[in-house]
Amino acid sequence: MPYVNIYCLDGRTEDQKREMASRITDVISEVGKVQKEAVHILFIDLPRTNISKGGILVSDKK
Amino acid sequence: MPYVNIYCLDGRTEDQKREMASRITDVISEVGKVQKEAVHILFIDLPRTNISKGGILVSDKK
Amino acid sequence: MPYVNIYCLDGRTEDQKREMASRITDVISEVGKVQKEAVHILFIDLPRTNISKGGILVSDKK
Amino acid sequence: MPYVNIYCLDGRTEDQKREMASRITDVISEVGKVQKEAVHILFIDLPRTNISKGGILVSDKK
Amino acid sequence: MPYVNIYCLDGRTEDQKREMASRITDVISEVGKVQKEAVHILFIDLPRTNISKGGILVSDKK
Amino acid sequence: MPYVNIYCLDGRTEDQKREMASRITDVISEVGKVQKEAVHILFIDLPRTNISKGGILVSDKK
Repeated sequence: MPYVNIYCLDGRTEDQKREMASRITDVISEVGKVQKEAVHILFIDLPRTNISKGGILVSDKK
Repeated sequence: MPYVNIYCLDGRTEDQKREMASRITDVISEVGKVQKEAVHILFIDLPRTNISKGGILVSDKK
Repeated sequence: MPYVNIYCLDGRTEDQKREMASRITDVISEVGKVQKEAVHILFIDLPRTNISKGGILVSDKK
Repeated sequence: MPYVNIYCLDGRTEDQKREMASRITDVISEVGKVQKEAVHILFIDLPRTNISKGGILVSDKK
Repeated sequence: MPYVNIYCLDGRTEDQKREMASRITDVISEVGKVQKEAVHILFIDLPRTNISKGGILVSDKK
Repeated sequence: MPYVNIYCLDGRTEDQKREMASRITDVISEVGKVQKEAVHILFIDLPRTNISKGGILVSDKK
């Protein structure tokens, strides 16, 4: 622990995930005082049709 | 907030997601007394091989 | 299925949860064409210190 | 209830999911003293680029 | 990985969680061919007012 | 979006959550090229009896 689930619009590149994972792990390790090895992060990619904000799908926003 | 994650058998159409998102947002906004804009909904689609009920995969049910 | 997880600021009353559960189940059953009995909803209550929007905890918003 | 979400590297076969679902349901039913029918399991498959341990993506590990 | 989230009615004892964790880990390790050390399990306890099945809160069922 | 769920051993202070939320939001905003306002983070605190690694509860580790 900690375990981090990041739900995100798909389209993020592997480079973006790599950099987010590395830097978020550093923040959690430093602030939470846990070993980096203990920080687990999952990216759950979602298409635009599968996210709604204010009752409107992202795929319907212009 | 609130944040709503809906895990569902894939195959729902965009129209079904659009209507669910709109109407669920209305319910939460009205009952929870929050602005519609604050209601976030994610649909996580899953294939029939990835859901089990009573120890049996949906893909194995006739 | 479907399975619905609702992450929400704590403080919602049992009456609010009862009405949300009932009405969200109706929407999913009607739009998704599934039996009401198949709709499962979980409410995960969170304190104001445990939700951040735009990098700011809800407990820090005036 | 209980509801079980299993986040896993994709590549598990349907046979592996079938056996995991069956046996995990048995364990939860027996230990938790609930009917097997009440145990729901979801498998959320993730590609190697979407899992990080210790700040390093699984896809970057040799 | 794998990462397992178990949402459950609160009231399970520490002994029940200990036995479920141990045995579910064994199943996943054996079937999924992963080291036991790689299997992570979280129990998220929920009160009876926070679980709905078929549109009815568990706390409302006789 | 993105939506971030952080499952963590309870005991983190509000200060730690504040700093994690702020800095993780900055990372996601910068790397993911999204507005900070769009980044939502939830902390789900768990007691030591509710986390297992390698089949052993954290509460059982010396």
